[in-house]
This record gives sequence, structure tokens and C-alpha cells, in this order.
Amino acid sequence: MSTGIYVHPTAVLGARFTPSPFAVIDEGVVIGDDVHVGSFVHICAGVVIGAGSVIGDHVTVCADAKLGDGCVISAFAMIGKRPVLSATSTAKAGELKGLVLGDGCSVGSHTVLMAGSVFGTACVVGDNAGVRERCRIGDGVVVGRSVTVENDTAIGSRTKIQSGAYITAYIVIEEDCFIAPMVVTTNDNYMGRTQERFKHLKGCTIHRGARVGGGVHILPGIEIGEEAFVATGSVVTRDVPPGKLVMGVPAKVVRDVPEDQLLDNQ
Amino acid sequence: MSTGIYVHPTAVLGARFTPSPFAVIDEGVVIGDDVHVGSFVHICAGVVIGAGSVIGDHVTVCADAKLGDGCVISAFAMIGKRPVLSATSTAKAGELKGLVLGDGCSVGSHTVLMAGSVFGTACVVGDNAGVRERCRIGDGVVVGRSVTVENDTAIGSRTKIQSGAYITAYIVIEEDCFIAPMVVTTNDNYMGRTQERFKHLKGCTIHRGARVGGGVHILPGIEIGEEAFVATGSVVTRDVPPGKLVMGVPAKVVRDVPEDQLLDNQ
Amino acid sequence: MSTGIYVHPTAVLGARFTPSPFAVIDEGVVIGDDVHVGSFVHICAGVVIGAGSVIGDHVTVCADAKLGDGCVISAFAMIGKRPVLSATSTAKAGELKGLVLGDGCSVGSHTVLMAGSVFGTACVVGDNAGVRERCRIGDGVVVGRSVTVENDTAIGSRTKIQSGAYITAYIVIEEDCFIAPMVVTTNDNYMGRTQERFKHLKGCTIHRGARVGGGVHILPGIEIGEEAFVATGSVVTRDVPPGKLVMGVPAKVVRDVPEDQLLDNQ
Repeated sequence: MSTGIYVHPTAVLGARFTPSPFAVIDEGVVIGDDVHVGSFVHICAGVVIGAGSVIGDHVTVCADAKLGDGCVISAFAMIGKRPVLSATSTAKAGELKGLVLGDGCSVGSHTVLMAGSVFGTACVVGDNAGVRERCRIGDGVVVGRSVTVENDTAIGSRTKIQSGAYITAYIVIEEDCFIAPMVVTTNDNYMGRTQERFKHLKGCTIHRGARVGGGVHILPGIEIGEEAFVATGSVVTRDVPPGKLVMGVPAKVVRDVPEDQLLDNQ
Repeated sequence: MSTGIYVHPTAVLGARFTPSPFAVIDEGVVIGDDVHVGSFVHICAGVVIGAGSVIGDHVTVCADAKLGDGCVISAFAMIGKRPVLSATSTAKAGELKGLVLGDGCSVGSHTVLMAGSVFGTACVVGDNAGVRERCRIGDGVVVGRSVTVENDTAIGSRTKIQSGAYITAYIVIEEDCFIAPMVVTTNDNYMGRTQERFKHLKGCTIHRGARVGGGVHILPGIEIGEEAFVATGSVVTRDVPPGKLVMGVPAKVVRDVPEDQLLDNQ
Repeated sequence: MSTGIYVHPTAVLGARFTPSPFAVIDEGVVIGDDVHVGSFVHICAGVVIGAGSVIGDHVTVCADAKLGDGCVISAFAMIGKRPVLSATSTAKAGELKGLVLGDGCSVGSHTVLMAGSVFGTACVVGDNAGVRERCRIGDGVVVGRSVTVENDTAIGSRTKIQSGAYITAYIVIEEDCFIAPMVVTTNDNYMGRTQERFKHLKGCTIHRGARVGGGVHILPGIEIGEEAFVATGSVVTRDVPPGKLVMGVPAKVVRDVPEDQLLDNQ
């Protein structure tokens, strides 16, 4: 084994484990067969890494994260981050379960995935992205570069969220949706004032197969119907009916989405 | 002490200092009691870290930065970055004072704070954010995930800047403001042409208690009055009077902000 | 030399090489004279680093990247990233040539430059930015903080792309352009549906000296003429004639760009 590798005596390493120089592997870690680990990597206590996974340089996999087989983690990623609490804090970060990544997931450079979230199989998360705690992500989801997915959000299988989009907390995006670059979602019409706002705090719901264009803004509480299409640059202030194309500021219905673009016709 | 820790003989370490494997602590560093430092951390010359602080994995704290007591720095952060000059550069980065963080500040993962800026107490800076040189930040300010705050900007106490907002150079945001996700501010109507532009270079001023909605664009030189409210997706091309709600492209006054949402009624 | 430095016996180090503690230098690396390398740095196989370059802490320079003389790479950057493929993948990342940076380039913290791209001399790339594979970047180009430049894009000399802009794949931005903060470009009117879309996939072309304002959205296939000016917050749905100023949603021609702002009059 390379020099500069510190492995806790309770860690279990699979066959053909090939770490590069300088790595720290903590208590109770379990690493499958044929795993490669780059330089300056820290695998924290209780982590499980599936067979055939590749961990890039400068990665920290945080306590109790579980990675499936064949996962690829790029450099500078932080997998399963837990809020680091100050000595005087009364919060209990320990209540979050470890992050779960399904088989064949790929995570980009400089990306942070928080503890308490669960990803299905074969998801791709781009560079510089962030997915916060308690999100439920389906299979084959794409979360693009620099995307933020806030806490407690659900994203259905095969949905694609493109670069720089901002997905606020407590929203639902169903399966087979397409969220274009730099889309903005919001969940608080009161912008931080009044106690009453907590009653009304509500993100949008984007139903199966809907597509939302580049830089669109979606206001709190909006429903975007199945297979709807929101044109680039629109501001969505009212619900969008299923199968309709809307555009403008504020967005208005213009026509039906063409038949040949519906999911069943692909 | 763990293996792989290099401590310069002039560094002063407090009681119960607990570094993880692989750390570099340079000349003249002073670390208070009960500080924890993660793996692959570099504390540069002249840094002071207050008691009870927690420094995550893969952090660099740059020369002469001063952290108050109980600060929490997440992984991959760069605290007090100085412009790294090439061998042939004639610029003088050394003129910037070290970054100052007040007691109880928290800084997110992959975040860069530049030298010459000063933060008050109990500020929270999210992941992937950046605050450039010579900014003055009050107490209890929140700078969200992926926010950019350019140089020479002032932000008042308790103001919250949400994810992905872009805060341009030389602007003032007073206390108790709310800047929603993905807001864009600009400071140059000439977009880089003519010498005359330097006379007119001017960001916006956002007065006490104003709230600016998601994805709003604010043009150079605009004043947003006290307690004003700018609705999501607006483009602000004229000054906004105090206490008024504006919306649209370009933004126009629609009504007064409701009494129950004013600061004095919280 | 400092402790914790692993240098492969085939690596060639220039005079006055000054690495900080903890570095990994792989097979066949060639480092010029007067190069400084920070802590926790990994220089991968076949890399060439020109004389007088400065490499910050926590940097990985990936296989076969070539850096000119006097380059400055900030902390946490990943230079020349190659897609890390899983054990079962059939893709061939090896076909990409190593990244090339011309003399005097500067790359920000937490920035990812992908293999297969070529930068001219004296380019500046900000923090948290990303430039993907097979881009061709001229001399003196500025790519701002948090900018994304997708694959196969060409950017002309002296063009400036400001913070947070999103530059989609397969587009051309000619020389001396100014792209303001948070501009959004798109290249797919079909948003991921139908096979026919692949025939129509087309980004915009931004011609010499054009300026595009903050937060502007540019639709697929648009041509922005030489020296044109697009005002902040516009949505560009039709071609913009040379030398014209457009604004609005959708953007319409308002007047000529003033003579004193044209390139030839600077």
C-alpha cells in the first residue's frame, strides 16, 4: 500500500484496494472490492463504499454515508455532510441518517450532498452542485452543474435539472421533467416577515413530464401540470394547465404542447 | 497528537487542541482552547483562531486572518484569501489586512472569503459562496449558498441574502433587508466601454428593511427605499419609494406594503 | 525539501522548486524553474508546469495538462479534469488531449477546467467557475466567478464574461465582447424531447464587440450582431442587428449604440 495511508484497525478493506498517497480511513469503514481512492481523501467513521467505486482526490465522505456499487465521486466533493455545530449549539445534527447513494451514481467536483438524503440508482450530479438534507431523489435523475436543491425536496426518476437552477425547499418535481438552466423557484411570498407566513410557506409542484425553460421564475405555491411547457424567461404567477405551453411575464397560455413532444410519443 | 501534523515551533496551541491526521500549522499561529481541526488543513502564518472553533477537513486559513471564538468553518473553505500574484506582477496584495470574523460565525463548504473584509458576530455564510475584499458585514448577516458579494460592499446587520444572488461591487445594503434567491445587481451602464463610465460607475443602495424578490434585476445607481418590496421577476429601472410594493418589467408601484409586514410590527 | 513530499523518480524538477508540506508528484511530470507549490497538491502524470508558476493549496493538476510560464492556480482548483469513468463504463475519456493554459493565465479557487480545452495567454478565470471540454479560449479572456462555459464553445480574445453567466455548449462568442453577470444562453428549443431536436440544437452567436446586459436570456440559434447592446433583463427572441441597442421582453430595437461607445473609438 502507498505511504501516508492511515487506516483504523476496525476498517474492512476489499480486495485490490488501491489508495493513492495520503488518505485517512476511520473507524468501522467498510470498502468493497476493486475500489480506488485518490490522494488526500478522508473516509469517515461508519461509511460503506460499494465494489468498483472510484473516489477522486481531496474528497471527504462523511460519517455513516452509504455508497452503492460502481459509484464515482469527483475531486473536492463532500458526501453526506452534516451540519458542523459549534460547541455551544443546542441543535442535534446527529438525528440525520447517513446519506444513501444507489448503485452507479456519479457526483461532480466541489459538490456537497447532505446527510439524510437518499438517491436512487444511476443518478448524475454535476460539479459545484448542492443537495441538502432529507431530499428523496429517484433513479436516473440528473442534477446539473451549480444546481442547488434545498432541503426536504422530492425529485422523480429521470428528471433532469440543468445548470444553475435553484430548487427551493419542500417542493415536488415528479418524474420525467426537464428544468432548464437557471430556473428560479421560490416558496415564501412574505419574504421573511410576519408569523403568518409560516402557514403559507409553500413551494411549487411540477408534475410528470413538465418542461420549464431557461431562467423561468416560478412563484410560491404554483402547480405546473403534466406535460406542460413554460417558455424561456417567463415568470409563472398562476397554475399552468396540463399539456399547455405558456410564455411571458406573467406567463399566459399560448397553445397546446405539440403531440410529437409528449412523453408517450417518444 | 495525531501523526502527520506539522506545527511551526513559534505556533501557540491552546488546551485540548485536537487535530486530525495531516495538518500544517505555520509560523506565529495562535490557536485558542478547545479547537478542533480536520484532516488536510493548512493554517497559515499569523492566523489567530478563537476558543471553541471547529475547522473542517481540507480548509486553508490564509495569512493573518483572525477568527473569533466559536467559529465553525466547513470543509474546502478558503478563509482570508489573498490574490496570489505571479512572479512578474507589480500589484501589492500585501496591503490588504487579514480577514476578520467575529465570534460565532459559520462559513460553508467551498466558500471563499477574501482578505481585507470584516464580519461582525454570528454571521452565517453558506456553501459555495464568495465574499470579496474590503467588504464590511454587520452582525447576524446571512449570506446564502452560491452568493457572490463583490468587493467594497457594505451589508447591514441581520440582512439575509438568499441562494445564488449576485451582489455587485461598491453597493450598500442596509440592515434588516431580505434579498431573495438569484437577485442580480449591476453597477455599470456602459458595460465596460468609454473612459466616461468610471465617473458613473455606481451600484444600487437598498435601504433598511427593504425586500427584493427572487430573480429581480436592479440597474446601476438605483435606490430602493426603506421597507419597500420588489416582487419576484421584476426589473427595477427607477428608484423605488419607501414602503411601496413594485412589480413588473420595468417595475411599477402597485400598492403600499401591508402594515403587518413592516419591521416595527414584527 | 519539506517533509511529506512524494516525487516519482521520473519527475523533473526545476531550480528553486519550493513545495510546502504534503504533495504528490507523479510519473513524468516536468516542472520549470522558480515554481511554488502549496500544501496538499497533486500533480498527475505527464503534467508540464512552466517557469515561475504558483500552485495554491489543495490543487489537483490532472494528467497531461500543460501550463505555460507564470501561471497562477488558486486553492482547490482542478486543472484538466477528465471524466472519471466507472469500472463498467464503455466511454473513452482518454481521447481528450490534456488541457493547455498559455503563459500568464490565472485560475481561481474551486474552479474546474476540463481536458481538451485550450486557453491563450493571460486569461483570468475567477473562483468557482467551470470550463468544460474542447473549448477554444483566446488571449486575455476573462471568465468571471461562478461562470459555466459548457463544452465545445469558442470565446474570442479580450472577451469578458462576468459572474454567474451561463454559456451553453456549441456557441461562439467573438472577440471584445462583454457578457454581464447572470446572462443565460440556451441551445435546445425542444428541452430534451423528440429525436428531431438534434437537428435543431444550436446555441447563439455573439459577434465582435457585442455587449449583453445583466440577467439577459438569449434563446437558441440567435445571432447578436457586431457592437450590439442588449439591455439588462431583456429576453432575446430574435436576431439583434449590428450596432443596435435592444431592450425588453421580448427585446426590441430602441436606438443605435452611441458612437463614442464603439470599439474603434476607445
